[in-house]
Amino acid sequence: MSDSPLQSLQRLIGQSVTVQLKDGRLLDGRLVGFDDHMNVVLEAAGEAIGETRRHLGRVIVRGSNIVRLSVPVPGAAARA
Amino acid sequence: MSDSPLQSLQRLIGQSVTVQLKDGRLLDGRLVGFDDHMNVVLEAAGEAIGETRRHLGRVIVRGSNIVRLSVPVPGAAARA
Amino acid sequence: MSDSPLQSLQRLIGQSVTVQLKDGRLLDGRLVGFDDHMNVVLEAAGEAIGETRRHLGRVIVRGSNIVRLSVPVPGAAARA
Amino acid sequence: MSDSPLQSLQRLIGQSVTVQLKDGRLLDGRLVGFDDHMNVVLEAAGEAIGETRRHLGRVIVRGSNIVRLSVPVPGAAARA
Amino acid sequence: MSDSPLQSLQRLIGQSVTVQLKDGRLLDGRLVGFDDHMNVVLEAAGEAIGETRRHLGRVIVRGSNIVRLSVPVPGAAARA
Amino acid sequence: MSDSPLQSLQRLIGQSVTVQLKDGRLLDGRLVGFDDHMNVVLEAAGEAIGETRRHLGRVIVRGSNIVRLSVPVPGAAARA
Amino acid sequence: MSDSPLQSLQRLIGQSVTVQLKDGRLLDGRLVGFDDHMNVVLEAAGEAIGETRRHLGRVIVRGSNIVRLSVPVPGAAARA
Repeated sequence: MSDSPLQSLQRLIGQSVTVQLKDGRLLDGRLVGFDDHMNVVLEAAGEAIGETRRHLGRVIVRGSNIVRLSVPVPGAAARA
Repeated sequence: MSDSPLQSLQRLIGQSVTVQLKDGRLLDGRLVGFDDHMNVVLEAAGEAIGETRRHLGRVIVRGSNIVRLSVPVPGAAARA
Repeated sequence: MSDSPLQSLQRLIGQSVTVQLKDGRLLDGRLVGFDDHMNVVLEAAGEAIGETRRHLGRVIVRGSNIVRLSVPVPGAAARA
Repeated sequence: MSDSPLQSLQRLIGQSVTVQLKDGRLLDGRLVGFDDHMNVVLEAAGEAIGETRRHLGRVIVRGSNIVRLSVPVPGAAARA
Repeated sequence: MSDSPLQSLQRLIGQSVTVQLKDGRLLDGRLVGFDDHMNVVLEAAGEAIGETRRHLGRVIVRGSNIVRLSVPVPGAAARA
Repeated sequence: MSDSPLQSLQRLIGQSVTVQLKDGRLLDGRLVGFDDHMNVVLEAAGEAIGETRRHLGRVIVRGSNIVRLSVPVPGAAARA
Repeated sequence: MSDSPLQSLQRLIGQSVTVQLKDGRLLDGRLVGFDDHMNVVLEAAGEAIGETRRHLGRVIVRGSNIVRLSVPVPGAAARA
């Protein structure tokens, strides 16, 4: 069954996602919104910095900086 | 409840926000405007430089340089 | 017989593909969707890191970061 | 009171502004024009080079190279 | 006789071409398709890595990463 | 008096201008044409290389590589 | 007399031109075509590599990688 990128994003609304940025950083949070440019809004967001996590609250990420967005896999490494 | 990136920006008008730029710099200030390109206008803006903060007054930031925009979290580190 | 890039992507739906990103990383997974910007959706995706593979589950990759997308060649090196 | 980026630029016509470029350079001058791409025209412009300032006269800056544009703050450091 | 870039690509359908990417890599293969963004599809494609060639099979290359596309010159160096 | 970037370019037709490129190089020449992308045509153009100047004749510069365009200031340093 | 960038390119059809790419390389060849994005087609093209020249035959260069295009100046350095 085919599923376009924007349809896939729509299905992830309300779920925890991991966003990898172009500069290599990883953000995580609950996806609460997105648009056609793949700009996204995360709630209860955090940024992984080595072993710690910086709390960011609600964050708006510009799509042009996003490499990929995924759903954390149970049992996988915490930073994945 | 879903909330698009531009709706989220609209809700932040008048609030203090932190903007992370592509070159790693952090700007903060009161959000007074934005447009579809995510160009933003900050008032009483400042730029974090190590431990000090440079006052910039009113600043217009080009959206193409913005990685993310967030609301500072109470109790979190000052630079977050 | 000519075959446009989007037609070629359409034929690959449901198949295992390898995606090379601008930062040199290789993702693999089953292609479940794409759009005109070459944003793609991979299922059972993974990321090659040296000799290991990090499981990513379902991943949405922003087309602007993609260099090339190919079908793994039987008998070729695993990372190809 | 909300104020869009282009409205903010319009208010700055005739005033001294500081423009930070992507390569880190700072230009200053009197803003005499701009367009939707945030291309700007500065008069009596100069470029800060360490402690000195190179005179450029009238300069047209391509918006795609601009990070931010601000009004110099009285009493702040000269290069701000 | 003038020949636009897309007309030139059309004439190369079915022929062996060499594609130089922004990161310096060279891909070769039989051109089977392209579009207005200069996204291309290569069949029996390979990637030159030093003295060896990695087989890629059918590959879709995103135009934004392409520097130039040429027809190998008989008698020229293999990597040209 | 306000003056848009394209109006400013129009006024500079026939005059000597200096163009700074993203890679830091400086081109100079007589401006004979431009378009909406800020692509420009220079005549009797040259490129500053350290203390020498390489003659380029007529040159078409792609706007996406241009940082700024200015009119040389009498009495200022030759490379300004 | 004003001459837009595309008009200037049109006048160069059939002539030998030098194209400087973003990565610093220089291509030369006879201009046989171009389009609005400044994608160009060169015939009998070559690439300068130090003191030698690699023959490329017919080459299609993506405009987004082009810094400038010029007509070689008689008597100037061969690589100009």
